[in-house]
Amino acid sequence: MTEEIDRRTTLAGLGAIGLTAAACGSAQVPPGGGRKLGYAIVGLGSYATRQIMPRFKDCRFSRLTALVSGTPSKLEQYGEEYGIPGRNRYSYANFDSIRSNPDVDIVYIILPNSMHAEYTVRAARAGKHVMCEKPMAVSSAECQQMIAACRQANRKLMIGYRSRFQPHNIEAIRLARSRAVGKPGLIESEHGFTIGDPTQWRLKRALSGGGSLMDIGIYSVQALRYMAGEEPVSVSSTEFTDRRDVRFRDCEDRIAFNFLFPSGLIGQGFSSYNSNHNHLRLSGDKGWIDLDPATSYGGQKMRVRIGSDEREVDPPAGPGANQFAAQLDHLSQCVLTNREPIVNGEEGLRDLRVMEAIYRSMKEGRTIRL
Amino acid sequence: MTEEIDRRTTLAGLGAIGLTAAACGSAQVPPGGGRKLGYAIVGLGSYATRQIMPRFKDCRFSRLTALVSGTPSKLEQYGEEYGIPGRNRYSYANFDSIRSNPDVDIVYIILPNSMHAEYTVRAARAGKHVMCEKPMAVSSAECQQMIAACRQANRKLMIGYRSRFQPHNIEAIRLARSRAVGKPGLIESEHGFTIGDPTQWRLKRALSGGGSLMDIGIYSVQALRYMAGEEPVSVSSTEFTDRRDVRFRDCEDRIAFNFLFPSGLIGQGFSSYNSNHNHLRLSGDKGWIDLDPATSYGGQKMRVRIGSDEREVDPPAGPGANQFAAQLDHLSQCVLTNREPIVNGEEGLRDLRVMEAIYRSMKEGRTIRL
Repeated sequence: MTEEIDRRTTLAGLGAIGLTAAACGSAQVPPGGGRKLGYAIVGLGSYATRQIMPRFKDCRFSRLTALVSGTPSKLEQYGEEYGIPGRNRYSYANFDSIRSNPDVDIVYIILPNSMHAEYTVRAARAGKHVMCEKPMAVSSAECQQMIAACRQANRKLMIGYRSRFQPHNIEAIRLARSRAVGKPGLIESEHGFTIGDPTQWRLKRALSGGGSLMDIGIYSVQALRYMAGEEPVSVSSTEFTDRRDVRFRDCEDRIAFNFLFPSGLIGQGFSSYNSNHNHLRLSGDKGWIDLDPATSYGGQKMRVRIGSDEREVDPPAGPGANQFAAQLDHLSQCVLTNREPIVNGEEGLRDLRVMEAIYRSMKEGRTIRL
Repeated sequence: MTEEIDRRTTLAGLGAIGLTAAACGSAQVPPGGGRKLGYAIVGLGSYATRQIMPRFKDCRFSRLTALVSGTPSKLEQYGEEYGIPGRNRYSYANFDSIRSNPDVDIVYIILPNSMHAEYTVRAARAGKHVMCEKPMAVSSAECQQMIAACRQANRKLMIGYRSRFQPHNIEAIRLARSRAVGKPGLIESEHGFTIGDPTQWRLKRALSGGGSLMDIGIYSVQALRYMAGEEPVSVSSTEFTDRRDVRFRDCEDRIAFNFLFPSGLIGQGFSSYNSNHNHLRLSGDKGWIDLDPATSYGGQKMRVRIGSDEREVDPPAGPGANQFAAQLDHLSQCVLTNREPIVNGEEGLRDLRVMEAIYRSMKEGRTIRL
């Protein structure tokens, strides 16, 4: 191992967010030197078009080069808006021909959950690196297939856990690890929104794989895990769904769940399609860290109490100030420097395993050991 | 019903806290006119001696007139400190002779939980009104015996739920009822402390009736109920106790529990002998009400967010600013005006029924319908 590679190693992980353009532009950086890597967006729904695509302008290592959609009018509209030439606009039918397109380095899957596995595998087989939205898939078995396909193709696989690139969350993790509020005893996280249109794909199990937990509740699962810094050894849960509500014929509404971590730390989570929550709180024996909103698109607020001193903490805006751009650039940097993303396929799989345990506990009415 | 009684009726409930001395001093007030009612404190442990007894000086309708203890040196020490004559100092052996003592109107039971029922019944049979510390008893069956004994003796029975007399909690309830933060979706409350000495009575089931839930967790149970303003229809819970820990050979450590209320509102509670919590939060569809500490002896803090407006709310200090004095005076006023305490025996029984359901769910691993 050369000194140069050693130096890069120390820049890995969360630190990689701060990797400078100069480092990436060095002669040793494969492939393509300092150029921005090209992303193809698969699925032109509201998250893709309103949150992700507008953020490429803030990226240092990533650019939008291709679009994939089943709706020709969307390809036309967004192709014009973002200057994507006709040859870089794909339907699902000709998606696999993306293999021969040198403008595309990374494929970002923003489809309904049940389609993540298929398109990740197809993208890897087309020789592209993959960013896949969360939840990674609708089962842990699918996650394993996705990991295997990317490994076989020697391509990177990253899951779109944007909060891991959001400054307040990064600072909260740092404070938790440094025991700033003492020994953690309880972590709580609630995520929810009031879902409307009962005909949307999120409420069809065949497309979503489940209800609120598979959509908004995964933020609580992730947050409990990243704040704990350890993996749950047991999971228990209780479902609260009014099956007479036309929205919840096929999918669960609310779930309350608990994790026990090896250190004795407890996680208490909540997921809802019937109330509004976006909250994360770690209680230690010297105080607490409280984020509300915790994982929103913007406007995060954090309060920290240590002893009797309580204050709002506003982390300095660094390169990660824009969580979307930071997430996109993280995978580009990982590709450029041949590093593993901090939220790779294995991380996505871990959430799916925990969510499967939540569903099992809910159905079997018992605590599930992991 | 006379106009005078009608007028008093409108002063009942929470409003009674603000009842003026003039009203109580009127010719129609039974018994004893404007005099302060005499309290006998049964059990001279730290809560009695450090929190309750020093607060009589702030009371308008209550005074300390007698002491009951099995420890002669405590009777001597506190008798001297509070000017209680020898004839008003009782042992448990001669406690029943308190019947003939005109200085004592109310007996306040501050004994280990398993002794609440016996001393409440003995006090009622001695013709005294009763204030009993929470939990009211170690079983709902005992609660029913206590209610029956007080009813038979035509004496008032009140449970020491001091938070119901604490301004921040009163204001939080008012805000919840007025829908200041919209339709409530979730109420959370965590209470806990790190318990020390493994030989203390709290950790002996025969005296305490249970672990953290029977001691500190009841604050979470109460808070979920008074913030909801409705009664749970189902209860589920998960226990987290390390039985290798010498403190928890006989009693549970931590319990996470959930309530479903008839409106669909969910309560999420936590009780711990292994971490520090004193928190209450109601989330509505327009914002939230957050108290931390919520139910401490003092220093309550409340934050309220409505839309994007978040601020600290500090309710004006009224007669209830001192929750201890307000609690003591509430029972005196109820006796003087023949009203039912807002936290009577039935209210104590409701908490016991819910706690029994929590224990049952924990043991049977299923949701308990109420």
